[in-house]
Amino acid sequence: METFDGRYLRASDYSHSSWVLFGVPYDGTSSFKPGSRFGPQAIRQASISLEDYSPYQGKTLPTFADIGDIEMPLGTVEKALAEIEKVADGVIADGKFLIALGGEHSITIATVKSYKKRYANLQVIAFDAHCDFRDEYLKGKLSHATVLRRIAEMSKLHLFGPRSGSRNEFVDVKRLCLTFEPFGISKIGDAVSIIGNDPVYITLDLDILDPSVFPGTGNPEPGGLAFSELLDAILWLSSQLNIVGVDIVELNPMLDPTGASAVVAAKIVREILIAVG
Amino acid sequence: METFDGRYLRASDYSHSSWVLFGVPYDGTSSFKPGSRFGPQAIRQASISLEDYSPYQGKTLPTFADIGDIEMPLGTVEKALAEIEKVADGVIADGKFLIALGGEHSITIATVKSYKKRYANLQVIAFDAHCDFRDEYLKGKLSHATVLRRIAEMSKLHLFGPRSGSRNEFVDVKRLCLTFEPFGISKIGDAVSIIGNDPVYITLDLDILDPSVFPGTGNPEPGGLAFSELLDAILWLSSQLNIVGVDIVELNPMLDPTGASAVVAAKIVREILIAVG
Amino acid sequence: METFDGRYLRASDYSHSSWVLFGVPYDGTSSFKPGSRFGPQAIRQASISLEDYSPYQGKTLPTFADIGDIEMPLGTVEKALAEIEKVADGVIADGKFLIALGGEHSITIATVKSYKKRYANLQVIAFDAHCDFRDEYLKGKLSHATVLRRIAEMSKLHLFGPRSGSRNEFVDVKRLCLTFEPFGISKIGDAVSIIGNDPVYITLDLDILDPSVFPGTGNPEPGGLAFSELLDAILWLSSQLNIVGVDIVELNPMLDPTGASAVVAAKIVREILIAVG
Amino acid sequence: METFDGRYLRASDYSHSSWVLFGVPYDGTSSFKPGSRFGPQAIRQASISLEDYSPYQGKTLPTFADIGDIEMPLGTVEKALAEIEKVADGVIADGKFLIALGGEHSITIATVKSYKKRYANLQVIAFDAHCDFRDEYLKGKLSHATVLRRIAEMSKLHLFGPRSGSRNEFVDVKRLCLTFEPFGISKIGDAVSIIGNDPVYITLDLDILDPSVFPGTGNPEPGGLAFSELLDAILWLSSQLNIVGVDIVELNPMLDPTGASAVVAAKIVREILIAVG
Amino acid sequence: METFDGRYLRASDYSHSSWVLFGVPYDGTSSFKPGSRFGPQAIRQASISLEDYSPYQGKTLPTFADIGDIEMPLGTVEKALAEIEKVADGVIADGKFLIALGGEHSITIATVKSYKKRYANLQVIAFDAHCDFRDEYLKGKLSHATVLRRIAEMSKLHLFGPRSGSRNEFVDVKRLCLTFEPFGISKIGDAVSIIGNDPVYITLDLDILDPSVFPGTGNPEPGGLAFSELLDAILWLSSQLNIVGVDIVELNPMLDPTGASAVVAAKIVREILIAVG
Amino acid sequence: METFDGRYLRASDYSHSSWVLFGVPYDGTSSFKPGSRFGPQAIRQASISLEDYSPYQGKTLPTFADIGDIEMPLGTVEKALAEIEKVADGVIADGKFLIALGGEHSITIATVKSYKKRYANLQVIAFDAHCDFRDEYLKGKLSHATVLRRIAEMSKLHLFGPRSGSRNEFVDVKRLCLTFEPFGISKIGDAVSIIGNDPVYITLDLDILDPSVFPGTGNPEPGGLAFSELLDAILWLSSQLNIVGVDIVELNPMLDPTGASAVVAAKIVREILIAVG
Repeated sequence: METFDGRYLRASDYSHSSWVLFGVPYDGTSSFKPGSRFGPQAIRQASISLEDYSPYQGKTLPTFADIGDIEMPLGTVEKALAEIEKVADGVIADGKFLIALGGEHSITIATVKSYKKRYANLQVIAFDAHCDFRDEYLKGKLSHATVLRRIAEMSKLHLFGPRSGSRNEFVDVKRLCLTFEPFGISKIGDAVSIIGNDPVYITLDLDILDPSVFPGTGNPEPGGLAFSELLDAILWLSSQLNIVGVDIVELNPMLDPTGASAVVAAKIVREILIAVG
Repeated sequence: METFDGRYLRASDYSHSSWVLFGVPYDGTSSFKPGSRFGPQAIRQASISLEDYSPYQGKTLPTFADIGDIEMPLGTVEKALAEIEKVADGVIADGKFLIALGGEHSITIATVKSYKKRYANLQVIAFDAHCDFRDEYLKGKLSHATVLRRIAEMSKLHLFGPRSGSRNEFVDVKRLCLTFEPFGISKIGDAVSIIGNDPVYITLDLDILDPSVFPGTGNPEPGGLAFSELLDAILWLSSQLNIVGVDIVELNPMLDPTGASAVVAAKIVREILIAVG
Repeated sequence: METFDGRYLRASDYSHSSWVLFGVPYDGTSSFKPGSRFGPQAIRQASISLEDYSPYQGKTLPTFADIGDIEMPLGTVEKALAEIEKVADGVIADGKFLIALGGEHSITIATVKSYKKRYANLQVIAFDAHCDFRDEYLKGKLSHATVLRRIAEMSKLHLFGPRSGSRNEFVDVKRLCLTFEPFGISKIGDAVSIIGNDPVYITLDLDILDPSVFPGTGNPEPGGLAFSELLDAILWLSSQLNIVGVDIVELNPMLDPTGASAVVAAKIVREILIAVG
Repeated sequence: METFDGRYLRASDYSHSSWVLFGVPYDGTSSFKPGSRFGPQAIRQASISLEDYSPYQGKTLPTFADIGDIEMPLGTVEKALAEIEKVADGVIADGKFLIALGGEHSITIATVKSYKKRYANLQVIAFDAHCDFRDEYLKGKLSHATVLRRIAEMSKLHLFGPRSGSRNEFVDVKRLCLTFEPFGISKIGDAVSIIGNDPVYITLDLDILDPSVFPGTGNPEPGGLAFSELLDAILWLSSQLNIVGVDIVELNPMLDPTGASAVVAAKIVREILIAVG
Repeated sequence: METFDGRYLRASDYSHSSWVLFGVPYDGTSSFKPGSRFGPQAIRQASISLEDYSPYQGKTLPTFADIGDIEMPLGTVEKALAEIEKVADGVIADGKFLIALGGEHSITIATVKSYKKRYANLQVIAFDAHCDFRDEYLKGKLSHATVLRRIAEMSKLHLFGPRSGSRNEFVDVKRLCLTFEPFGISKIGDAVSIIGNDPVYITLDLDILDPSVFPGTGNPEPGGLAFSELLDAILWLSSQLNIVGVDIVELNPMLDPTGASAVVAAKIVREILIAVG
Repeated sequence: METFDGRYLRASDYSHSSWVLFGVPYDGTSSFKPGSRFGPQAIRQASISLEDYSPYQGKTLPTFADIGDIEMPLGTVEKALAEIEKVADGVIADGKFLIALGGEHSITIATVKSYKKRYANLQVIAFDAHCDFRDEYLKGKLSHATVLRRIAEMSKLHLFGPRSGSRNEFVDVKRLCLTFEPFGISKIGDAVSIIGNDPVYITLDLDILDPSVFPGTGNPEPGGLAFSELLDAILWLSSQLNIVGVDIVELNPMLDPTGASAVVAAKIVREILIAVG
């Protein structure tokens, strides 16, 4: 099985690793351009072109386990989320932390649900170009367009970066998030102050990046972050907080024939693994 | 609303048309490369480059109605099929015949179900590169991989062209279809003899064509038909049988950057409309 | 007919709208890579992925009319410009303001000519990566390479952003424009001071953006603006000036397979519609 | 200057060559997807991957001259055709034969006009997927859609292969062509009998090939010829007739990312040069 | 490690398999468009979309081992061929048969050299669109353009299908091959008669297929075989001869964005594995 | 022969030019995505869309010679480098300065070696996203991954911009370069102070740019320079130093379907030619 960064899984990896990575090849509720199901595979392939050393952090990749992609059932988002939750439950039960590679953003509903069973005081930081805060979308409660509202119903939520959404969504995010900053991420310090030592889950929708940096996503939204802005923020949060879980979602490699978007995603995964590992 | 062949829908079209065309932008159970949801839109755009006259038949397009795309709900294939069935029921209740543009092949489950309520003696002719005859696939009973088995459970089925499938599928299609011909379509005369005057529904999975002719599909299978073989068969069937419904499925325009696949689909739709109209 | 932002034209829209949008699918004088004729269609399709609410302005899209694409005659630029002028004359005669979606830049010759009949004191602000200031190009007086010189002969012109042109063009723009700033747009305040309350037409050649942000254009010129620079400028001008007409030109969707360029164009159109509407 | 088959033009080539090749980078009346202006350049680049020996004919490329591309004026089809005619006049006045590489099909109007001055009894054989027989199209008399009607008004015309056109066009081609065969080329022997020793000009619209073989063209029409059918016909005609001029048109390399269409065109050019040279 | 047909290698596979597959990601002497190094990876990925059952043969894939890709040294073709030969030697020493996935055609020099040590009476059947029979090319003796001459120097060679080459190459192939048929494969019976019971190695350059069927190759040559022609020939040879080794070369997935070429290659590999396994 | 900026080489150009440009279509040691061999050709074609006047410098292109591409031998990097060195020797012996267009970065080994024979005190400034400082890579000493170490062994080296490399490479570059700045280029003043009047060779690996600006390269590394940062640095260095040679490497046009990367490269070449010419 092809795994992240050319490191093929051996049985011993899992037991010696505190962080466990898996792919979630799911895009069943994407309403526009599908294909984020190929995100995990593309991130792993792009990782081959990267070094395992980070000059930003002065460290190499720690030991971690890549347990491959979850096999997704067809037909309903409920079954898909249940499958993800089951895998996440297992990893968490083993006392490990997880990094999920999407796939579309809806998968966060499953992983956060799983984490909440273990960490009642979990707080969530979300980076996203969109509010994802509809209550219902195209007759469904569970989708990429409703995911952060579902998260806010389960957990304390800090949301950074939305530059797109309906008027109602912007009203609701202000009301229901502990920290909210549209367009940018300059106030992540506020979230850090509020969170303190509570366990933190970070959900990173890569479309927060500008489409020039990251065109390979289903709903590109002009006016986003530069790569270094996002990288700096993630490294700083890693140094300040007790991060227990991460997901990186919404890479759609079918939409970027240059392949650069997949490299962006793979590099961020590497930096996170080094920072938290 | 953009409609087929540049003919924009007017209210009167529907009442004056015996044939009604609609799009089904659904690919929710595709297990490999998604994107057939963009099939209807691509067929309509490609139709702009085609004449409305068929030199094969010596006739121009008849009056017909294009009622646009069905808005698909998110999340479950059951909800999607129910929506399609509802629309089909309405069209059939108005005494009209329908042409559905997929989308993936699973949509045929809904249209045939609808037709069976009106025509108890309906027979179905399927053209397909794959058997689509699994009983269950990735934990689901309703999908592109099971569709023809579901149809065979509802109706008499004649299946032409499969060049791919599991051993079990090939065993079952032989047992459960009235006519079955792998690889080709040379025996469609046998089906015509059996069907006689019964009402016929044709489901055309465009991947029966060779990938050289039609690369824009999620599961291309080398060794298929030439364009003229398929066209000749369809025109001949139209002259021999009482066709009451048709679907044309599995164009995925994201996979063919030349755009030629969409033109193939649009030309077949034009020929069918002229032949049955 | 497919129209902007999924809002299908109803008869009443036109009479209730003060702003009227139309497409000009023309690229007949493009000397390098053609295809901007598909710009209007691509902008409309990309608009489907955008919200109708602008978090930048805190407002939703106002009522406006999209009267579709002008059908362009073949063969000569004179006939094409005459057709555009005729449509623009009609819209202006109805007391409305227009937003033209190109197509190539030469179309501005027609729209400004039409506006000048109504507003003798019209001033024009142009954003462009190129001077477009040749007197003649490849034996023709009317083309994308001469358009701004033609405009300067008709009207007061303020030109921002050129980072490409011949030595002569740079000499002439300095001489013939009221305001001229190469490379950037930091001096738009100077133009605002000069213009005062005069009616203003803005012609926006999207290639002023950096090719990383907007690769989908026939003559990409490295070293351009970021998306936010352009957006900020447009919103500020909208708040300061009496804008009576706008065009947005030179999107060539054939050249950007990621589709991100079309989204950039569509988002700018949305923001302009909200700002002036 | 890049020329055909890697053979860079030397002054002596022209004087020693009886056949002269030039490119016509013109697509000014294309009504759908433009880009055939890049046809000549793509044919020359693809020729680099081909041998100069034909195993079909057992001969190598003869001496010929490639005088490069005509510089096209902007703005009107009349000016463009006049420029082509002027170049063709010069080549013909020098007692040479020409091979023109399109560009769109309308260019044939200029070359045949030029030939008619020299050969009053010129006959023309056209291969085309479309009738190209409108009297006027989008308000113009001179375009890719009217070209063969203009030719029929100037010269005796034999038309092979159309599988697309309006009902009127099919009526008119039957009336106005000496030989006419829709869909195929099996009756070229009839044309050969009629023509006898008269000088012949062949205009080859490459879209007569099936889109599977030749997707790189603006109006692909399913159901066309195989490569070997076309090649055999051309070689046989070359052996039977007194061919004095040829054009090969409608390659649009922007539409075929595989590059195979350009190789098809280049190989046909090679075979023609060997056959007539 | 990702291996063919989704069957992940277990230690026991190798010992229980008589056929062993490996990839050779090498394109170091490609003189035109490089990228066949990605052939093995693309074939494996495409194999995921295929069934493991062949309706052509009525059998499923036998047990076989996929030992992954050889890691290729940089810099010289000699080092690369030595590496391949070493791996082949090992597999053959274990009493197994090998299927090599290219990569470019030059790799056959290594595998045949290895086989010759074991089978002094080895005969080779080559399918290729090009003669590959230069004695030297661009100052090198070992390359894709010389490979079949090198093979003919080592072993009895039967060559089918060339439709491209220099005049000298065609002279030499006639002289140096036991059987030679340009353009087609209708005389493979002649080769079978000559070979009798001798061990046979088949080298299949996929560019023998028509570019419509297989555009994903560095030197596409119009006028090739249909898929079914090639498949029938391979299955028939498998039933007649004592095949001890096979390679399948020159898939370049970078050149076919539809992905259909990779599926063609993968399906042929499947059929060969079933036929010889 | 196609040459830079549409200026076709005449015999007199070479003798009147102090700067001589040539292409090196070599990518024989690329370990990931090949195709930089097409870099020189793509730069020349993109140069057609650029003006010959620089508004940044207020000057037009000086006289220079483009002597075309070096024909590369197949098979070994040693032979390739020897060929490049031979051409460079000739140009330098004529008292001229050279600009080499890659091709991959390893070519710098040949040009610097040639320069060192003429200028014993040569200093080299390298811009690169990668350290390229391995001692050996995939069993080879001469490759894109070792090139800057080889340069440091021959000459004084100043390295700017690496944001990728192994831990050892970062240790070694600090030790072996006179100036070293990871991530950025803010300290080029330090190098200028050290170099003084010594002759300088600049090797510019274009992947130092951010992938959003320059996706067309084999190993894109997120987090790079903006276009204007690089341009400003080059123009400033040109004004401060005695530059005697330049190379611009690692454009791979196969990887950027928008073509924007080639325009970036062509514009930088134009600016350098004007600055040093």
